[in-house]
Amino acid sequence: MTDAIEQYMRDCMCDSAHDTQHVLRVRKYALDIAAHERGADLELLGAACLLHDIGRAEQYADPRVDHAACGAQKARCWLEANGYGAQFAEKVADCIRTHRFRSEDPPRSIEAKILFDADKLDACGAMGMARTLFYKAHVGLPLYMLDEAGAVLDGTADSEDTFLREYKFKLEKLYERFYTRRGAELAQSRRAAARDFYEALLREARECHAISM
Amino acid sequence: MTDAIEQYMRDCMCDSAHDTQHVLRVRKYALDIAAHERGADLELLGAACLLHDIGRAEQYADPRVDHAACGAQKARCWLEANGYGAQFAEKVADCIRTHRFRSEDPPRSIEAKILFDADKLDACGAMGMARTLFYKAHVGLPLYMLDEAGAVLDGTADSEDTFLREYKFKLEKLYERFYTRRGAELAQSRRAAARDFYEALLREARECHAISM
Repeated sequence: MTDAIEQYMRDCMCDSAHDTQHVLRVRKYALDIAAHERGADLELLGAACLLHDIGRAEQYADPRVDHAACGAQKARCWLEANGYGAQFAEKVADCIRTHRFRSEDPPRSIEAKILFDADKLDACGAMGMARTLFYKAHVGLPLYMLDEAGAVLDGTADSEDTFLREYKFKLEKLYERFYTRRGAELAQSRRAAARDFYEALLREARECHAISM
Repeated sequence: MTDAIEQYMRDCMCDSAHDTQHVLRVRKYALDIAAHERGADLELLGAACLLHDIGRAEQYADPRVDHAACGAQKARCWLEANGYGAQFAEKVADCIRTHRFRSEDPPRSIEAKILFDADKLDACGAMGMARTLFYKAHVGLPLYMLDEAGAVLDGTADSEDTFLREYKFKLEKLYERFYTRRGAELAQSRRAAARDFYEALLREARECHAISM
């Protein structure tokens, strides 16, 4: 049955290999975290991991769509149509609906908390930086902004969406947002790699823009 | 006159702010290197820097097009049509034609060598990693590949184009390819940031894929 869920996930992924690689990493992280927590239903958790981002295509097409809400509905429909019980489908949908970082609807079940943490782990460290650069390229995001004197801003006061701003406002703050102890521990082990990359990028950009014309 | 060249460059840039930011960094680096070298014509060098990537749109549209050769021709046409002498236009075109890393047509004039080095500097360090991730996202490149046992490959034996392969085959080797002493020196100061990011990304991916299912 898992093979069918995995095939449906692959059919839903719209932007190539790296989306699917992300989903498979999230499933791995979730299993690692579940081995350190009590009472997680692994079948439910596996399905929620595989299907957690199937609403991405809809959000790309219309940014007002919340991929978590949309993905939850798609998952419930597909699971019920493919022989899973209504209660199982409802629980999977609940995990997917609450996995979003910016959501005001926090995860409640242990499976939902593990999915949230596993997904956030893949936004930590060098992997998180690489994935953010990958995704943001689609919308033509600049790396940084200059102030009026031509100096590179560090992201905290950028008036436009830039990669450095994404780091300061989202990626840098992730590490305090984990629900499980194991998730928080893995996240901490990756924190320095992300910070080092941010600092190197900012330093290089500033050295360059400091060259006088 | 430089304002007109800069405006033409902006008109040619097809994928948003980060292309223009790259071009302006290359001009800064070139001025820094020129201050350490003898005999560079700064007007010629400035024009070559601003126009060096104006053939990118043509290469995106048809990958068989060499953006350096195409950009050189576009630059010569535009400069001659805008009041620059044929000899100046020819020298600028010569710099642009030979700035490409993979080319077998190496830079010969001091201005061409400085442009080559300035452009390669922006592919070094954290900036080079960030820019490569940005550009490769357009073609849906995966970060890495797995071997048959499900372990993450380090890039050296990848049978497909991946980010880790791009690092091992291009970015890692850049640092030995500089023509000017100042370019090589600036490049070396950025080498560790790129290597650290590659190693962190590979380590994180391997730790994740090592989790057994």
